[in-house]
Amino acid sequence: MFTCDVKRMEDKIKTFSKFGDAGHGGITRYSLSPEALMARAEFKKRMEAIGAVIEVDDVANMYATIPGSDPDAKRIVMASHVDSVKNGGNYDGILGVMGAMEVLETVVANNIPHKHPLTAMIWTNEEGSLYPPAMMVSGIVCNDYLPPQIAKNFKYENMMASKSVLDGTKTFGEALEASGYKGDKKYRLNPDQYKAMFELHIEQGPILEDAGNDVGVVDCVLGMFNYRIKFYGQAAHAGTFPMHKRKDALHAAALALCYLHEEIDKLGRPELVYTTGEILCHPCVHTVIPDYVEFSLDVRHEDPKVREQVMEIVKSLETKEWARCKCEIKEAWARDTVYWDKELVGFVEEAAKESGVKYQHINSGAGHDAQFASYMMPTTMIFVVSKDGLSHCEPEYSSPEQCTAGATVMLNAVLKLDAK
Amino acid sequence: MFTCDVKRMEDKIKTFSKFGDAGHGGITRYSLSPEALMARAEFKKRMEAIGAVIEVDDVANMYATIPGSDPDAKRIVMASHVDSVKNGGNYDGILGVMGAMEVLETVVANNIPHKHPLTAMIWTNEEGSLYPPAMMVSGIVCNDYLPPQIAKNFKYENMMASKSVLDGTKTFGEALEASGYKGDKKYRLNPDQYKAMFELHIEQGPILEDAGNDVGVVDCVLGMFNYRIKFYGQAAHAGTFPMHKRKDALHAAALALCYLHEEIDKLGRPELVYTTGEILCHPCVHTVIPDYVEFSLDVRHEDPKVREQVMEIVKSLETKEWARCKCEIKEAWARDTVYWDKELVGFVEEAAKESGVKYQHINSGAGHDAQFASYMMPTTMIFVVSKDGLSHCEPEYSSPEQCTAGATVMLNAVLKLDAK
Repeated sequence: MFTCDVKRMEDKIKTFSKFGDAGHGGITRYSLSPEALMARAEFKKRMEAIGAVIEVDDVANMYATIPGSDPDAKRIVMASHVDSVKNGGNYDGILGVMGAMEVLETVVANNIPHKHPLTAMIWTNEEGSLYPPAMMVSGIVCNDYLPPQIAKNFKYENMMASKSVLDGTKTFGEALEASGYKGDKKYRLNPDQYKAMFELHIEQGPILEDAGNDVGVVDCVLGMFNYRIKFYGQAAHAGTFPMHKRKDALHAAALALCYLHEEIDKLGRPELVYTTGEILCHPCVHTVIPDYVEFSLDVRHEDPKVREQVMEIVKSLETKEWARCKCEIKEAWARDTVYWDKELVGFVEEAAKESGVKYQHINSGAGHDAQFASYMMPTTMIFVVSKDGLSHCEPEYSSPEQCTAGATVMLNAVLKLDAK
Repeated sequence: MFTCDVKRMEDKIKTFSKFGDAGHGGITRYSLSPEALMARAEFKKRMEAIGAVIEVDDVANMYATIPGSDPDAKRIVMASHVDSVKNGGNYDGILGVMGAMEVLETVVANNIPHKHPLTAMIWTNEEGSLYPPAMMVSGIVCNDYLPPQIAKNFKYENMMASKSVLDGTKTFGEALEASGYKGDKKYRLNPDQYKAMFELHIEQGPILEDAGNDVGVVDCVLGMFNYRIKFYGQAAHAGTFPMHKRKDALHAAALALCYLHEEIDKLGRPELVYTTGEILCHPCVHTVIPDYVEFSLDVRHEDPKVREQVMEIVKSLETKEWARCKCEIKEAWARDTVYWDKELVGFVEEAAKESGVKYQHINSGAGHDAQFASYMMPTTMIFVVSKDGLSHCEPEYSSPEQCTAGATVMLNAVLKLDAK
């Protein structure tokens, strides 16, 4: 039983929080931005300081590896990302990189014997905040292993052509060329060279905190589906068109959204989450009755039967009229629940138990690079409690002690796999 | 009893529809744009052809005047605008200018005796589509006569500084300087020189059509109020945050919008109109629970007591909780019902009756330059039926016969005032 170092972890948290500091407690650190390159340089500097060898693949993923005692053993990799959403926090993604660094630093500092080489890895562009989509680069690297309906969304050429959401012109491919981090394809994560992947991450929800736990032994990433729900009305002047003749697409959307909440809640599934985060309204002028409104619906649950029940409710929208408007639904995205490797989950649980941390089993509602990697090699995740359950926003917080507890669990789980 | 000429009116409709033709039946003709300057040049050419004298004031309003027999008589002015909304139709505004031209052309062609000089006028920037606000220039010209709470929104300096909604930099003042239509302030519409104003306009609603009438004798512009209704929630990750803890500002807004419809409809006032045309959502990302949503509410009714009842319902929003979110309301704009000059309304009705057109009394739900002019001099409006009640969109349509019938009513109403 080895433990990571709180002081060293705290120093990393303070240092990395500077790269992209937005001035009010959080960061904006888009992938391959100057701020993200500063974080990569810091990673390189600290890993070289403990004797790790740095490799960079052709899509800017960085690998810092320390050798193991068995020259034939595959590497065990711990990976996450350094990029953030706009005005994000200091833990999402970077915690997994700092945790991997902390594991390597602890192994070196304590001369912990191990057979397998150990790798700390940075995935490029997980958030997709500047160059969509999210999990872009794990989608590229794991492409041959992904289910075809997912793989088709991450074709290398298309990803290189992804345009900046800020200026609409610069592409991810151009940013990659300019970054100085376009390395060699031969270094890409692959199952011949790597034995397994671990990802330490903040929970991004309040479940651990509400239960009084600090660490989550993650079992799966929830299956989900995404719909676009569209309402077609008729524009007319707000002052001159009588109510009884209106086809108000925004009123239609509001009625349908309330209906969705009512009907889905009747299923009585407290663990089900569903969200309408995006709404578009045309022409969106206060004196014009809207003729078109579209909103998103994101639904997540482990059980495909429950997702199917929700889908039936969503489909029923089309069979009804909403404020005299027509409704059309379109599936945008769907994925099955991804279960982590059971042996690795077992190692994480044993490590958590032995370290004395308060822990529980938990599912991941959010997507992570680990989920694409899991199609290629055994993979699992470890969660650290998130204060108030907040994430993708500046108040995101986990204490240095909690972050270190998560790294300690990862260290010992890795050592259990190493010793097997 | 004189009548205007359908062929001549049809020719004007065809000609003016070219200036800003968007290629699918409608126009985009922002105020002082190249397209609007073409419309102004056409107005000048046609009015000079009948011997009218052209004057242009310092805010680009154009006046074409033919003399009357009494050298001491004030002018009678017929006015509307040539600018349109984005992808608007071929009738809103321009009908009133074409109608005024048609009246002058009919008077000259038929040598109709009249004492007062007659003026056809173009108001600059009624729509405010490129340089907000709407009715900008009538707000400037009538400023000294407007109620203070309205006048303050139309101060000359502020209006000159109004920025283009397209590029966010060019100002209305710059567009005015560049237009070649910045004339002399002494020509501004004023009650010393002008006796009364008429405005011919399309109805922009379906009331005339539904009743089988072609012309509306307008009594008033409906009083209205505008609110911004705001919901404050808490952003969190769509996949990780349990439903029972969410503060979803968009769900809150949908519930409140449905509540508003239910409660306002209970008032049982079929002539009341209310509209939510605009909605803002933050951060508007499909994987994030919205933390802020704001929507507009536009309410119009002749009777202040009815508006007061609606306002009570709106105010009750703040006293409730909406999906655990706080609601805040803010009044953005309010105006009382503006009644047209009763004598002028009488002349319009007599003229409609004598011309044999199918007509009825009607209120205007939309705002018009005439409403600001009415604080300065006796003013009234005449409506022409709108096909399907559509306006501010490309299918906007009134037949040449209907447009000419409206002009004929204006001509004879003007002659009745002239003869008084």
